[in-house]
Amino acid sequence: MVFARNQWYVVAYGEEVGDGLLARTVCGEPLVLYRTGAGEAVALADRCVHRRFPLSESNRDGDRIVCGYHGFTYDPDGTCVAVPGQTRVPRTARVPAYQIVERDSLVWVWIGDGRGDAAAIPRAPWLESPSYTTVRGMEPLAARYELLVDNLLDLSHETYLHAGYIGTPEVAQTPITTETDEEAGVVHVSRRMKDVECPPFYSRSTGIDGRIDRWQDIEYHPPGFYLLHSRIAPTGVEPGPDGDDSDAFHVEVGYAIVPETETTTHDFWWVARDFALDDAEVSAFLHDSNRTVVLQDVVALNKLEKVMASEPAGHQELSINIDTGGLAARRMLQKLTAR
Amino acid sequence: MVFARNQWYVVAYGEEVGDGLLARTVCGEPLVLYRTGAGEAVALADRCVHRRFPLSESNRDGDRIVCGYHGFTYDPDGTCVAVPGQTRVPRTARVPAYQIVERDSLVWVWIGDGRGDAAAIPRAPWLESPSYTTVRGMEPLAARYELLVDNLLDLSHETYLHAGYIGTPEVAQTPITTETDEEAGVVHVSRRMKDVECPPFYSRSTGIDGRIDRWQDIEYHPPGFYLLHSRIAPTGVEPGPDGDDSDAFHVEVGYAIVPETETTTHDFWWVARDFALDDAEVSAFLHDSNRTVVLQDVVALNKLEKVMASEPAGHQELSINIDTGGLAARRMLQKLTAR
Amino acid sequence: MVFARNQWYVVAYGEEVGDGLLARTVCGEPLVLYRTGAGEAVALADRCVHRRFPLSESNRDGDRIVCGYHGFTYDPDGTCVAVPGQTRVPRTARVPAYQIVERDSLVWVWIGDGRGDAAAIPRAPWLESPSYTTVRGMEPLAARYELLVDNLLDLSHETYLHAGYIGTPEVAQTPITTETDEEAGVVHVSRRMKDVECPPFYSRSTGIDGRIDRWQDIEYHPPGFYLLHSRIAPTGVEPGPDGDDSDAFHVEVGYAIVPETETTTHDFWWVARDFALDDAEVSAFLHDSNRTVVLQDVVALNKLEKVMASEPAGHQELSINIDTGGLAARRMLQKLTAR
Repeated sequence: MVFARNQWYVVAYGEEVGDGLLARTVCGEPLVLYRTGAGEAVALADRCVHRRFPLSESNRDGDRIVCGYHGFTYDPDGTCVAVPGQTRVPRTARVPAYQIVERDSLVWVWIGDGRGDAAAIPRAPWLESPSYTTVRGMEPLAARYELLVDNLLDLSHETYLHAGYIGTPEVAQTPITTETDEEAGVVHVSRRMKDVECPPFYSRSTGIDGRIDRWQDIEYHPPGFYLLHSRIAPTGVEPGPDGDDSDAFHVEVGYAIVPETETTTHDFWWVARDFALDDAEVSAFLHDSNRTVVLQDVVALNKLEKVMASEPAGHQELSINIDTGGLAARRMLQKLTAR
Repeated sequence: MVFARNQWYVVAYGEEVGDGLLARTVCGEPLVLYRTGAGEAVALADRCVHRRFPLSESNRDGDRIVCGYHGFTYDPDGTCVAVPGQTRVPRTARVPAYQIVERDSLVWVWIGDGRGDAAAIPRAPWLESPSYTTVRGMEPLAARYELLVDNLLDLSHETYLHAGYIGTPEVAQTPITTETDEEAGVVHVSRRMKDVECPPFYSRSTGIDGRIDRWQDIEYHPPGFYLLHSRIAPTGVEPGPDGDDSDAFHVEVGYAIVPETETTTHDFWWVARDFALDDAEVSAFLHDSNRTVVLQDVVALNKLEKVMASEPAGHQELSINIDTGGLAARRMLQKLTAR
Repeated sequence: MVFARNQWYVVAYGEEVGDGLLARTVCGEPLVLYRTGAGEAVALADRCVHRRFPLSESNRDGDRIVCGYHGFTYDPDGTCVAVPGQTRVPRTARVPAYQIVERDSLVWVWIGDGRGDAAAIPRAPWLESPSYTTVRGMEPLAARYELLVDNLLDLSHETYLHAGYIGTPEVAQTPITTETDEEAGVVHVSRRMKDVECPPFYSRSTGIDGRIDRWQDIEYHPPGFYLLHSRIAPTGVEPGPDGDDSDAFHVEVGYAIVPETETTTHDFWWVARDFALDDAEVSAFLHDSNRTVVLQDVVALNKLEKVMASEPAGHQELSINIDTGGLAARRMLQKLTAR
């Protein structure tokens, strides 16, 4: 496997990047992240030019990093400005600085050559919108990121792996529609369930206690950005002719699926809602429930990774209708990695 | 190394296979085992055809297994009978079912092509005989199974590794006779000790407190079935002219030596005796003593495996008379794996 | 990487070799060490000729080792003198015996062909001199030994990694002089600091509470012997014209840098002083402080080893003046390993 390079990846939540030195590897590239006194997020290659000591194991001196081994000192743009035992700093002494964009409370890094186009970064506006309340987290996954893409593009697994949380029998039973927008580079998968059971995740958070209409509209932006627009409403409640849908509940679930190494992944997840905005109990419930669901996936995918690692590559699979979205995602990923 | 295929292997004790889903790997092939409502033991390949999720991490629905990831549902013969999101089940959807034979309280599985001949399975009738009482267990061994074959074919190691349990100086001192029955595919190793010390394993279980005659008659049925017919009697007590030997004590020790992977092994062991049949204290003593002896071997062989893993293959060995049985066993194994 | 063979290596402190069987691997060669009744240190290959069982997991019978698996018995010169089940011992039955020299309380082993010249062993006479008191230890390092050579040849890292113990800003600031004696096969690195801060390691042990002159004179004897002649004196105190330097404090720090495997190292260290000879508190302080310093290096180098293991070989480095000694050491090591 090769990584999809020349791409934007979520590397951290904005609040993770601060005074400390945060080590995080993306696509096999070790980075050190911190925030300057002026508030700018910085990402440098996490290896001193001298003897490759990790800069994340070092110390800050103002906006600079002083290597913890021999004191090579770096500016936020990666330039080395001091070395021990001599006043002359070699001209070639610099570590690569990575292009960073902060948007919607996410820190994006450009992994590739040259500079990326920030306009190409997909948006998640509800993460900073006052009309939404968000809970979120990040779990380490000991599996290749493609397994998580597969997992999230086919939600029929909710019925089996997440029963009692978000899964009900109707999820697996209801057919999906899949649409690949090659131009925009997005895979859409939709499932519209009418008059179905309301799983605990939504009944306890919304207060609905009868049957519901439940929409799942997935947008997958390769290589690693995933949005699930979830609409829940008492059965029969429809959006108004003017587009007003305020009688329904909207939950914007999202994932950043970020390859760390070839077989490990950063699994960022969030749940934004447009109801019970100030209800701390609902926030705690949704946080804990969704984290449980994420960890159920983590456990299952870690097992699958072990299966794949123990078998020769190119094992056979059998795909059916539910896999249409996942297969479209794989084709897009293949194109990106082949470039 | 390759495994000996087209062979019967012990995969479990009968009582291990029940309502649950038991994962067990034999010769690198992952299996899931369970027992149908009608009492029949079933072994299927432990990988869903869809995305290779382990069926052993799944759930039963009556006699069927429902995959824990996306709900693919299998009959005991491996046929997939239901998939999510659609009513049509692809015709090719099936997992391999393995041929199973239960005999003498052991569950045997055929690893290979086509169907095996159940008549070729070696017997251990005392395991279910009312004239014997048996204690048994299974220990995981982090070593290639050939090391356990070597170990068991040469019991002179009892003197050094199992002193205080079954080893006495006379075991290593007494020469052996070895006979290879190529036609039947069995290696026989015998050691007849006359007027020797009685080790605690036998003195405490039989009550003999003087010198003994001690016979060790080994039958090794490649690749993985091992019987040790052990006869202990006060010195001078001989079988009668009519074959009656009821003044002696008989202990039928057995091992199933089952390769899990190239470097790990299932080490099944049992001790059946024709005396003190209802004496729970003797049972507990023999169980604990033999398990200790097995674990002494496990510790030593795990160390040897690490030695072998840390060295280039084809290291030199020096073999002597005591190794005649082990070398014969290796030759038979080589023939079986070369097929 | 290959090891430098046909070399002397420190394998143990004299007091480590006694009645027990000590397992220690040098340059990938597993050894078992013990001391005969007559007091002679013995090193044999730690593998029985029969089935490669580690002799270090065995037992002694007087000056002999009896293999813990099948009882093959060896004389201190490696000759096998008894085997089980037969009186004839095969003529070829012997394990390699390694040439051992004990000098200055260190046990040296010759790794290579034939016999080594004991006169080539570098000396550390203060280890057994009544004019010095020594504290010492050995720490396992999960890193290739070259990283420790690099580390010790460039003491500017004291300022960053060992601040509060032996590091002060002046160490990194003071230039070094390096001299390579190709004929003797020694690298010399010297740093003379005048009128500098006295770090706690020296102030608490010597009782000096003002500014000091501090000399660091390194001798590196490839592949793995390192001496640091450290002289501390109140600023301005110089050796007399007759060479008398009794108003200064002398600390003879030493390391034996001994490759265990390609990526692990035995890190022997000692600190000998010519003052406060009978002061147990100073001994305890120097032992604990130096062990802390060694462990700071161990932690840093273990991290570096992980960095190197995770990256393709031949990564770029940037060397400056402080690295002159380390680069000279590398060149000498390359010559030794190329032979």
